[in-house]
Amino acid sequence: MHSPTIQKLINLFSKFPTIGPRTASRFVFYLLRLNEREIKELTSAILKLKENVKLCKLCYKSFEPSTSSGQKAEGELCEICQDPRRDKSLICLVEKETDLISIEKTRKYQGLYFILGGTVSVLKKDYNPPTTLPSKGRAPELKKLRRIQELLERVKNPEIKEIIIALNPITEGEATALYLERTLKPLGKKTTRLGRGLPFGGELEYADEETLSSALEGRK
Amino acid sequence: MHSPTIQKLINLFSKFPTIGPRTASRFVFYLLRLNEREIKELTSAILKLKENVKLCKLCYKSFEPSTSSGQKAEGELCEICQDPRRDKSLICLVEKETDLISIEKTRKYQGLYFILGGTVSVLKKDYNPPTTLPSKGRAPELKKLRRIQELLERVKNPEIKEIIIALNPITEGEATALYLERTLKPLGKKTTRLGRGLPFGGELEYADEETLSSALEGRK
Amino acid sequence: MHSPTIQKLINLFSKFPTIGPRTASRFVFYLLRLNEREIKELTSAILKLKENVKLCKLCYKSFEPSTSSGQKAEGELCEICQDPRRDKSLICLVEKETDLISIEKTRKYQGLYFILGGTVSVLKKDYNPPTTLPSKGRAPELKKLRRIQELLERVKNPEIKEIIIALNPITEGEATALYLERTLKPLGKKTTRLGRGLPFGGELEYADEETLSSALEGRK
Amino acid sequence: MHSPTIQKLINLFSKFPTIGPRTASRFVFYLLRLNEREIKELTSAILKLKENVKLCKLCYKSFEPSTSSGQKAEGELCEICQDPRRDKSLICLVEKETDLISIEKTRKYQGLYFILGGTVSVLKKDYNPPTTLPSKGRAPELKKLRRIQELLERVKNPEIKEIIIALNPITEGEATALYLERTLKPLGKKTTRLGRGLPFGGELEYADEETLSSALEGRK
Repeated sequence: MHSPTIQKLINLFSKFPTIGPRTASRFVFYLLRLNEREIKELTSAILKLKENVKLCKLCYKSFEPSTSSGQKAEGELCEICQDPRRDKSLICLVEKETDLISIEKTRKYQGLYFILGGTVSVLKKDYNPPTTLPSKGRAPELKKLRRIQELLERVKNPEIKEIIIALNPITEGEATALYLERTLKPLGKKTTRLGRGLPFGGELEYADEETLSSALEGRK
Repeated sequence: MHSPTIQKLINLFSKFPTIGPRTASRFVFYLLRLNEREIKELTSAILKLKENVKLCKLCYKSFEPSTSSGQKAEGELCEICQDPRRDKSLICLVEKETDLISIEKTRKYQGLYFILGGTVSVLKKDYNPPTTLPSKGRAPELKKLRRIQELLERVKNPEIKEIIIALNPITEGEATALYLERTLKPLGKKTTRLGRGLPFGGELEYADEETLSSALEGRK
Repeated sequence: MHSPTIQKLINLFSKFPTIGPRTASRFVFYLLRLNEREIKELTSAILKLKENVKLCKLCYKSFEPSTSSGQKAEGELCEICQDPRRDKSLICLVEKETDLISIEKTRKYQGLYFILGGTVSVLKKDYNPPTTLPSKGRAPELKKLRRIQELLERVKNPEIKEIIIALNPITEGEATALYLERTLKPLGKKTTRLGRGLPFGGELEYADEETLSSALEGRK
Repeated sequence: MHSPTIQKLINLFSKFPTIGPRTASRFVFYLLRLNEREIKELTSAILKLKENVKLCKLCYKSFEPSTSSGQKAEGELCEICQDPRRDKSLICLVEKETDLISIEKTRKYQGLYFILGGTVSVLKKDYNPPTTLPSKGRAPELKKLRRIQELLERVKNPEIKEIIIALNPITEGEATALYLERTLKPLGKKTTRLGRGLPFGGELEYADEETLSSALEGRK
């Protein structure tokens, strides 16, 4: 139906998160209405992303090293990890950068972060916590936690006192939290999880029993 | 469009919670398909409701006094208030009976209840907590809390150590909780609220900042 | 969880169309708040339904014979079938009374009706149209069209020139329409179906191909 | 919150149809995970769009002139307008290219097209059809129909016998259709509109009265 150039671009946009072929084709027709200057603006912004944006060596957050001033020129760490006012005894583990941004927006957290970049699915019931650091031979499912080695290295830092596991309270997040707790336990660090309860706007009548139990236990 | 008998019943069903005229008319056509025995079964079940079901003098939960055995024959208190294994030092304030049922389903709460039967809307900013028990002259808005006097009487009982305000974390619930805290404070009782946080199935990315702040503060 | 009287009524309301146990229990708590007069009003309205409302002998629409005046005292036919201004050469076949009401609301149709009271599911591919009137031995699926004999009797009336099959354009409606067309054909009557096309508020972009084809073919 | 390069790209993606800032930021994090080759593939596909794709001089459909063969080298007309098997006596007016694609997918239409590129909002009641071609001084609202002059020119072609106005049956589409009918009338061409009715999957009970009236009138 579509010409090759258009179809090619529809295919590429269809890989974008949440986008199907219908919306992808609307993107293409939108681009067809843009003028040359606007198209250039978009493509150069995409290309600059790879050039300008790095991942922090410590927490894997994306950041843009300032090039001119030289102030942040060493450029290995993001602005959060470099901030001397941040509490370095706290690490908050999140699945992805948008979760980190959500937490930053609360302006209530002053510690550091670590972006896991993935979660594991439900673990087998007969799963045994590893007695050593996960080896190369670990289950394929656990490979989704591709930064687990880097996390274990970083957590060895004696400055770190508490590790907040801030994963989504869904099946995968719970399975991953359980795995992380078991794996981090031998290192003698305190691990915590986000509090459960009713969200703002929630109603008792529609809350699941687990959430309501947590809300009762966590009353204050 | 409809005949008078049908229209009359559509009007009555339209007053049922969540029901509009379209669903009300589907109810009527459903009833038209029932046979005489089934119709009798429904109307006598409705009539028995008023005859058999009472509201508990202590907590206002509906209950059905057992008539035959004489065991519960005194019939003034519901099965929860009568249960000797319940912890009488705890009272959980809820808006309505369905909220009580939700909490009972968790099987985690062993105290007693009090059904407020209503909530107040947003209070004015310059609201001053009453120095005495709310008098007859209180604001019309507060009349929605029609059992407030009964609550204050009940709470005087020295057995009661903690009052859990288990209202929905929505604007009305929050305003009512604030009012109750201020009103109960002079009685020297501990008041608590349900814990806030992410519900099961929630996601950090879509959580509001208030909920996420509570989840961080309530970590454990 | 609920007392027997309440649970009994929840069970009965759960059989109402579109109602699940949660809404059913909200109905019961709503009824508990009504006073005795209001309860009586509801139950007597339900009981009067069976007493006052009849099904029309001709079209199966519900109607209420006027008792006082004697005008409609014979009371076998609904107000539509009795109306001398109605065009008796047209019969519109609908599945249920709410569909009849929808058509009446358009004020565009002046013929008569016949309420089938059911539809059949997908017919087998090797289905052969009956050469005679459907006999007692017909497939169980076809028993859902329990008024098919009455329809065939009625349609024999030479006054009737056109039969409009006004079934929902969904799989069951289509299968039933096909069955009716085949069954009515030997009687030499003209059968028609509702026009297909884009509804008000529809969009070409989201229309299925069949609907859009009909809209193109039916352009005017 | 975001670095300048990221924020810039979020802003650009937020202009894409249906995309808000949240999804736009998910797009950026998706791009950050792509490797250099994949980024190049995307940007060059976007750039090729402007180079390779033209708008048809006759119907404004996008198309890609074949460069190699020379067959379509003149490259002024899209593949539909060039197709000798197409019925040139029919023009179908659509709002946008996705609507054209929807119609092509039905494989039921063999005429040509004209993409209007916009619709007008509700016209004033006292609107008078222009006695001449719309002049420069026409109402600002009508400027949204920016190709109206080109349409009027094209429609003068004596080959054209019927103009199908295939606009969405929503308020804007109806107003535009009315305007087009009045404007095209002096040219003595037959104009038609898409048939209205119940779509596949629709139900009489939930159909609006206008749609149901059309379905009754358009029965066949």
